[in-house]
Amino acid sequence: MSDTPTRLALLGSTGSIGRQTLDVVRALPDRFRVIALAAGRNRGLFDAQVAEFRPDHVSLADGPGLSLEEMAVLPEADIVVIATSGTAGMKAAWAAARAGKTIALANKESLVAAGELIIAELTNSGGRILPVDSEHSAIWQCLQGEPEPRRIYLTASGGPFRTFTKEQMAGVTPDQALAHPSWTMGPKVTVDSATLLNKGLEVIEARWLFGVAIDAITVVVHPQSIIHSMVEFEDGSVKAQLGFPDMRLPIQYALTWPARLPNAALPALDWSKAASLTFEAPDTNRFPCLRLAVEAGRRGGTHPAALCAAGEAAVDLFLDRRLPFPWIPRLIERALEKHAGTEKPSFDDVLAADQWARGFVADLAREAPWNS
Amino acid sequence: MSDTPTRLALLGSTGSIGRQTLDVVRALPDRFRVIALAAGRNRGLFDAQVAEFRPDHVSLADGPGLSLEEMAVLPEADIVVIATSGTAGMKAAWAAARAGKTIALANKESLVAAGELIIAELTNSGGRILPVDSEHSAIWQCLQGEPEPRRIYLTASGGPFRTFTKEQMAGVTPDQALAHPSWTMGPKVTVDSATLLNKGLEVIEARWLFGVAIDAITVVVHPQSIIHSMVEFEDGSVKAQLGFPDMRLPIQYALTWPARLPNAALPALDWSKAASLTFEAPDTNRFPCLRLAVEAGRRGGTHPAALCAAGEAAVDLFLDRRLPFPWIPRLIERALEKHAGTEKPSFDDVLAADQWARGFVADLAREAPWNS
Repeated sequence: MSDTPTRLALLGSTGSIGRQTLDVVRALPDRFRVIALAAGRNRGLFDAQVAEFRPDHVSLADGPGLSLEEMAVLPEADIVVIATSGTAGMKAAWAAARAGKTIALANKESLVAAGELIIAELTNSGGRILPVDSEHSAIWQCLQGEPEPRRIYLTASGGPFRTFTKEQMAGVTPDQALAHPSWTMGPKVTVDSATLLNKGLEVIEARWLFGVAIDAITVVVHPQSIIHSMVEFEDGSVKAQLGFPDMRLPIQYALTWPARLPNAALPALDWSKAASLTFEAPDTNRFPCLRLAVEAGRRGGTHPAALCAAGEAAVDLFLDRRLPFPWIPRLIERALEKHAGTEKPSFDDVLAADQWARGFVADLAREAPWNS
Repeated sequence: MSDTPTRLALLGSTGSIGRQTLDVVRALPDRFRVIALAAGRNRGLFDAQVAEFRPDHVSLADGPGLSLEEMAVLPEADIVVIATSGTAGMKAAWAAARAGKTIALANKESLVAAGELIIAELTNSGGRILPVDSEHSAIWQCLQGEPEPRRIYLTASGGPFRTFTKEQMAGVTPDQALAHPSWTMGPKVTVDSATLLNKGLEVIEARWLFGVAIDAITVVVHPQSIIHSMVEFEDGSVKAQLGFPDMRLPIQYALTWPARLPNAALPALDWSKAASLTFEAPDTNRFPCLRLAVEAGRRGGTHPAALCAAGEAAVDLFLDRRLPFPWIPRLIERALEKHAGTEKPSFDDVLAADQWARGFVADLAREAPWNS
């Protein structure tokens, strides 16, 4: 472990992952220096963060300072944390990958929509991705010092509607969907956890992060969210990573890897009390988003980009109370049916597929067939 | 991975671990060559093993061939598997450690009674121990590519009497004690699993194998025996190794480490069915052997040797139907109370403590205070 602080550029500092990243920095002040902060429109919080961490570079959407893509390639940053959501984060990840940066990646779209392209760029540039998502961090932790896995078990909490019937799901409100049983996250990923779309996107991410086939990844529902994922090796041995559900743990691991540092603020598991960890297969009949995502992942090309953008647009409609909950998968399915995919896309093709899917959902929203 | 077969010397080939070691060799015939076989008194099985594996060296107790200690230091052996139980196995482990061998160690007494001495010899000689026990293999697997742990969670099935009251335990027969709910093992270790003495001995072993303090090891009862143990790191992250309870998996891992090889004979976990893993704290009131072992481990010196030998002698009496089950811990406790321990013992002091404890139990058996 070196005595020099790790220099961080943090993109998306006012979102859930951004704020928790700064919590980790606060807990380990000698270990890190925040040299760049970028955020969207939460000006009040951003100003407070800038006053506290005094970065050399700042970037606020529609404000002065560097562009997000310039922040992503700062030569003096040891790690670029990309926690900006959506297409903006994906463009930043693309720029960082081409520049050979070490990327702590929390932007989901990047690997889902452009995973093959980004991994190829990283191979060329010598950059690398440090997973931040709790599931991918778990897999990464389990693979330390180990050969290739033969299977990955991606665990899913099952979300707040795990035991709901289809009839019960028909009337789900945004408030219900935003009450996740075990994790505190941003609204988009919380709704995606309730539909299991999130788990499907994670299957596609895991494929690119760990170089395994889609069909070597199995989703297991584990409502307690204590086991964050598992890997199975050639000899049948399985390794799991466990922890109290707290995003600061995988964030800290990404930033200190391969070291592990004590942080009194991080909660520990308590095995002294009676406890039970349960596992069940996911029901893709009640949660079709999982199946749709895995299918888009298998088809590849621009299909995952279309899936991802259609899902985001559908969730926005749902949160605006303009779309019934069961229509989230239906909109995604319609978008994927209509999508004229490109098999070996460029990054611009990926962005175009994203735009196309958003437009498709917006057009459908004007018709609003769910109201007829 | 090299193409040259690993040359194995197998001491204790007719016991449970020995037979399962040969099962692994049968499943991976190109990977191993058995150059030496040693066993006790099961002449029929031993002759069949010699005919099948055609070792260069054989050793049968009270028979012709090399001594066990000569077998343990064969220069041409890449790995010496020490599965011989009791003092004979401990002497072989001591000889192998001094000779700088790589030892796949299944003899429990070695590290319990002489752990500090053996680890010191290995440091001098450049030898090493590859754990074979499922719990220690699990810990070892979890530590691959990782820094020092801050805590080890040693899981215990809880044995066949986990839910028995003290009154129910008073009448336990050898047949009941030999019916382990999840593992197939030899009779001594099966009874030790029923009293939890085995788990206490494993705490002491783990201390020496992984260089942690006794108080940094926590025993957790996990009746399904799927998680074979866990480690907790400085950041609060926990890693667990899981598998179907089958000793061939940890045996194979020790013999192929750091590689992992496919072996169709090894069972895999099945997560597609609903499953539940439960955890509870051990009850040292109903299972005092666990407390006695941890206390002997804390005291150190020759106390663990006395514990181990008194336990073996007590279990022999129990299996001979000469001792009631609840008297196993009482005999061990009396032996530890009477033991005049040596603080910095030599290997001969350890052997003397072992002999003393056996004599103490034999003397007490003649009085048989449990019959009065």
